[in-house]
Amino acid sequence: MAEPAATTRRVVVESVSPQVEGGRFPAKAALADVVEVRARIFTDGHDTVSAILQYKPMSSRTWKEASMEFIDDDHWRGEFTPTDLGKWHFRIVAWVDHFQTWVRGLTKKDGADLVTGPDLAIGAELVKSAAERASGRTATALGDHAKRLGDGEVDLKKRLTTAFSKTLADLMVGHPDRTAATTSDTTLQLNVDRERAVFSTWYELFPRSWSPTAGEHGSFADVEKNLGYVADMGFDVLYLPPIHPIGTTFRKGPNNALDVNTTDPGVPWAIGSPQGGHTTIHPDLGTIDDFRSLLSSAASLGVEVALDVALQCSPDHPWVIAHPEWFRHRPDGTIQYAENPPKKYQDIYPIDFETSDPDGLWAGLKEVFDFWIGEGVRIFRVDNPHTKAFPFWEWLIASLRAEHPDLILLAEAFTRPAVMHRLAKVGFNQSYTYFTWRNTRHELTTYMHELADVDDFFRPNFWPNTPDILPEVLQTGTRAAFISRYVLAATLSSNCGIYGPAFELMEHRPLRPGTEEYLNSEKYQIRQWDLDDNDSLAPVITQVNRARHSHRSLQRNSNLTFHHADNDMIISYSKRADDDVVLALVNLDPHHSQTGWIDLDLGALGVEDGSPYQMHDLLTDRLYLWSGSRNFVELDVAGIPAHVFSVRKQTRTERDFDYFA
Amino acid sequence: MAEPAATTRRVVVESVSPQVEGGRFPAKAALADVVEVRARIFTDGHDTVSAILQYKPMSSRTWKEASMEFIDDDHWRGEFTPTDLGKWHFRIVAWVDHFQTWVRGLTKKDGADLVTGPDLAIGAELVKSAAERASGRTATALGDHAKRLGDGEVDLKKRLTTAFSKTLADLMVGHPDRTAATTSDTTLQLNVDRERAVFSTWYELFPRSWSPTAGEHGSFADVEKNLGYVADMGFDVLYLPPIHPIGTTFRKGPNNALDVNTTDPGVPWAIGSPQGGHTTIHPDLGTIDDFRSLLSSAASLGVEVALDVALQCSPDHPWVIAHPEWFRHRPDGTIQYAENPPKKYQDIYPIDFETSDPDGLWAGLKEVFDFWIGEGVRIFRVDNPHTKAFPFWEWLIASLRAEHPDLILLAEAFTRPAVMHRLAKVGFNQSYTYFTWRNTRHELTTYMHELADVDDFFRPNFWPNTPDILPEVLQTGTRAAFISRYVLAATLSSNCGIYGPAFELMEHRPLRPGTEEYLNSEKYQIRQWDLDDNDSLAPVITQVNRARHSHRSLQRNSNLTFHHADNDMIISYSKRADDDVVLALVNLDPHHSQTGWIDLDLGALGVEDGSPYQMHDLLTDRLYLWSGSRNFVELDVAGIPAHVFSVRKQTRTERDFDYFA
Repeated sequence: MAEPAATTRRVVVESVSPQVEGGRFPAKAALADVVEVRARIFTDGHDTVSAILQYKPMSSRTWKEASMEFIDDDHWRGEFTPTDLGKWHFRIVAWVDHFQTWVRGLTKKDGADLVTGPDLAIGAELVKSAAERASGRTATALGDHAKRLGDGEVDLKKRLTTAFSKTLADLMVGHPDRTAATTSDTTLQLNVDRERAVFSTWYELFPRSWSPTAGEHGSFADVEKNLGYVADMGFDVLYLPPIHPIGTTFRKGPNNALDVNTTDPGVPWAIGSPQGGHTTIHPDLGTIDDFRSLLSSAASLGVEVALDVALQCSPDHPWVIAHPEWFRHRPDGTIQYAENPPKKYQDIYPIDFETSDPDGLWAGLKEVFDFWIGEGVRIFRVDNPHTKAFPFWEWLIASLRAEHPDLILLAEAFTRPAVMHRLAKVGFNQSYTYFTWRNTRHELTTYMHELADVDDFFRPNFWPNTPDILPEVLQTGTRAAFISRYVLAATLSSNCGIYGPAFELMEHRPLRPGTEEYLNSEKYQIRQWDLDDNDSLAPVITQVNRARHSHRSLQRNSNLTFHHADNDMIISYSKRADDDVVLALVNLDPHHSQTGWIDLDLGALGVEDGSPYQMHDLLTDRLYLWSGSRNFVELDVAGIPAHVFSVRKQTRTERDFDYFA
Repeated sequence: MAEPAATTRRVVVESVSPQVEGGRFPAKAALADVVEVRARIFTDGHDTVSAILQYKPMSSRTWKEASMEFIDDDHWRGEFTPTDLGKWHFRIVAWVDHFQTWVRGLTKKDGADLVTGPDLAIGAELVKSAAERASGRTATALGDHAKRLGDGEVDLKKRLTTAFSKTLADLMVGHPDRTAATTSDTTLQLNVDRERAVFSTWYELFPRSWSPTAGEHGSFADVEKNLGYVADMGFDVLYLPPIHPIGTTFRKGPNNALDVNTTDPGVPWAIGSPQGGHTTIHPDLGTIDDFRSLLSSAASLGVEVALDVALQCSPDHPWVIAHPEWFRHRPDGTIQYAENPPKKYQDIYPIDFETSDPDGLWAGLKEVFDFWIGEGVRIFRVDNPHTKAFPFWEWLIASLRAEHPDLILLAEAFTRPAVMHRLAKVGFNQSYTYFTWRNTRHELTTYMHELADVDDFFRPNFWPNTPDILPEVLQTGTRAAFISRYVLAATLSSNCGIYGPAFELMEHRPLRPGTEEYLNSEKYQIRQWDLDDNDSLAPVITQVNRARHSHRSLQRNSNLTFHHADNDMIISYSKRADDDVVLALVNLDPHHSQTGWIDLDLGALGVEDGSPYQMHDLLTDRLYLWSGSRNFVELDVAGIPAHVFSVRKQTRTERDFDYFA
């Protein structure tokens, strides 16, 4: 026989969302963002169901409650707004609501003039038992209602008025009979991040290229002097490739050459020398004080410094001597370098997650994060996390975030979808994406739908370029290609970034045709950039980033709608957050201007058919007055090959003004 | 710090199917049917993964194992064939396969002529440790291989031959290193049913209408005499509406009349009189011995008798006196009858699943099933299960099937999808569906796709009519409508049934226009049927059922493919099971013949483009020779408005015969 309690739980709660793998992993949310919880809730037969959402920070003992509302066909929704960072729990409690069932039946009977005394007596009993659950004046009030309902001496009409009164309904909502309530099978988890996990604009630069003196190794101090350049463009995360001493063994020269000049600076990802490893600063970049100064100057400009964590070592890294068991050894005693036969990467020793000392290794790696967190860093870009064990990341991120829930980790994994998704599930707050290679309208649209499917846990960060990837579309070298790609990145995804100044200075020369490697890549050598170049895209980027900062709709992703354009070289989409609506139109052809008719989904734009609406181009500051769903656009490849419109509903006054002023 | 063991488990096993709500409920399978298990399996980095499927009857202690194979993009598959009825468990175990990783790397290096001694020494170590896991001659063989691989004195080419030998590969597969293996998060459940749960053909009849004498109450003996009629048509389940004493209080007369003649037989679903309740036989139907005789005669013809279980009572049911607490009482002490205000069903007392005696109630209801199971009944059609508590069904079905895994329960719930699905999840083996109201090609196609989505747990049973439902399409009264609807039911769904003889005698008069109630329904009165009517559809039905019995493809559902027909009054689909392929073409217009071109997906039919193939119409026995994907069909509303073709690939000899004989 089943548990006695289970026998009375008639309500079913199913398909609760957001949930990731049945609650195995937390879904993601942002502080102060409304979390919408949906579920299928129903019972046997025809009784009315009531449901509430319960939620709390994981550490709290008491659940807060919010009522849920029926939508249709057994679908219900509720919402809550997390008020603290970190892990939250939520679940649903639902029960057969005998009072509401009774009111509904009574209403039908009343409509057919079939109400009898016993019908009201049933309600009186329900109200009486609610009175017993209540206390003080509420109990008294409920008791009074019960008496009035049940009193056979009183006129039936009067008793019906009591039955249907709002006062009674409200009193009853506050004192439901939950003895046979069902609680959803699994308590679901939510990881609540700060705003910047959801909305961030990244700028990646190699500090060593920022010396004002040609050929000299740049430093933190040089970067600090140029922080205004970065901040003025509207970037709020300054991401630095590894800042640690670089190994000399098998050091690579310019353009990945194997024959190295002693003056070649090496690859920043070949981390570690006798001077130190992952917690040491490359002496040419400066001191820890210089680093602290950079952080604090950046902070004063609203810019956060993000560090790169690449969990791998050059053969010269101190760990190689101190912790040889963290590396895989070959039978001849040598350490196994990275290889993808026939390619050898003898300058890199991967960490062996099958080490005999997993506890020591995990703790050692955590110390790296702890060190930089101690210095005030809260954003990390993690290099190739998919080549490190998933259980390690799950443990590491949970451990770090338990103390520092403001932490943001960006996963740099360009690999198969299941693997990228798993990294997001185990805790990475943001993820690099395939955006870099999605160029046509069909590719972009399909990809955005794929991302929408994993929206509960996977937060995309769109990059048109990285030091490793100069995509073919940018190799065309046209200004239109660079602008379009940044507009797409910055308006399709609330998190985006560029590798600069290569991007704004339109660096487009590949190492050789058919490769995505930059010629004279900063990965291998020091470069100098002319930030004052007249052709620089900095002004356009500034304009795009300003639009992002001033329009909340661009700061989220689940609010995207595509609109039809006849010309498939034009992509058209909008984002909406309450009254803020932005419509983007982008020319996907890097070589030719494109014109065409677009069919707007006016409902998605929040404008009425027949009413004109104002289109304010946030890139050029020009105003257009549109009306109806079908409009013509021209996207000029010689100028700005995109519109980013703020869509403004016309109020009557504004409209009058337009027509008569 | 995480569990030490967890730190080494690098492989991820995700998205295992079949699974129902993350393993909360069992998926459904059939004895001797291959169960295909799919999952996403991957690890960090680039190492090769191996995976096995483990499975066992729930009661068994030891897992059996089957290897899994990689398909693409982290997708893997494996399969097993359940050999016993009842609950089975399965799970996946996967690990990084260092030997295979090594062989793959070695192959690449060998291709580039880069193999060195240390490369082979690594393999030697892996083989040596496998030797330590093995025993006897296998251990010796592995040890020998390890020596040969690791021996620096031996020629490199010879060592490579050893490394790549199939002998070694096979030996290594048998002795993998699973110390760091990952087991899938949840052990998933499977409910294994017998064949008839998957493939069954039902015939519903009211025994009281089967007396040869007009106006007399028919009996089990009358039905027994006509079993040949049912069996010859190809039905293998004979389903009887409730066979119990019928209450007299508020008894309904013909056509649901409230004014009742004392001779009116009442509604069989108003169960219970002073003569007895759910375990008593209506005296006019016969004795328990008559029932036993009916069962045994039916069995000898390959027909199983299915009983109706309607868990509700007439006011005269013995439970009303013996167990008043199983019913809900109104404040005036009377029992609450069923009502849907303003409608009252005073002849029916619903069971109150919120009773104060849930244990007694649940046990009492189980006794009903136990009683009839004791009499040899193994198939039950459950009336309105969605008005009884879901936890009750889950407990009941699990309890009954633990002893009688050959049990089959058909859920008669015509309600919202979530509710129907839940009943299937809690254990119902078959379910009534919306097929009865799906008429157009779009409706039918959409519905079949919806059913495919719940194929893991929801087994449809298609009925063109029931005693409660004379759908509008049949009210047209055309022979073509009746034939088409049965062909659709019988070829779209492996489980199907009709309510006869109303169906084959084309009873099509509704109680009044706009209702689906039959005029002079057998629910309220005794009818007489002329089984020898010349217009009877029995011969066509026989032919359709013969096709079902002789074609395995029609005995399953997940093998359905739709084909394009230019004329949307024609629906075209095929089913395939290995070499057995059936193509159905049905005219959906009950009034007019339809012609049109169809575009066949030849791949789904297993025929080659360019080769002719023979179409054998299983309804008319006529043969056609078709070739290519585009063919013309004519579906005659005056004759048989459908083709059910067996598709036969031509062998060379057959083709020669056709052309030259």
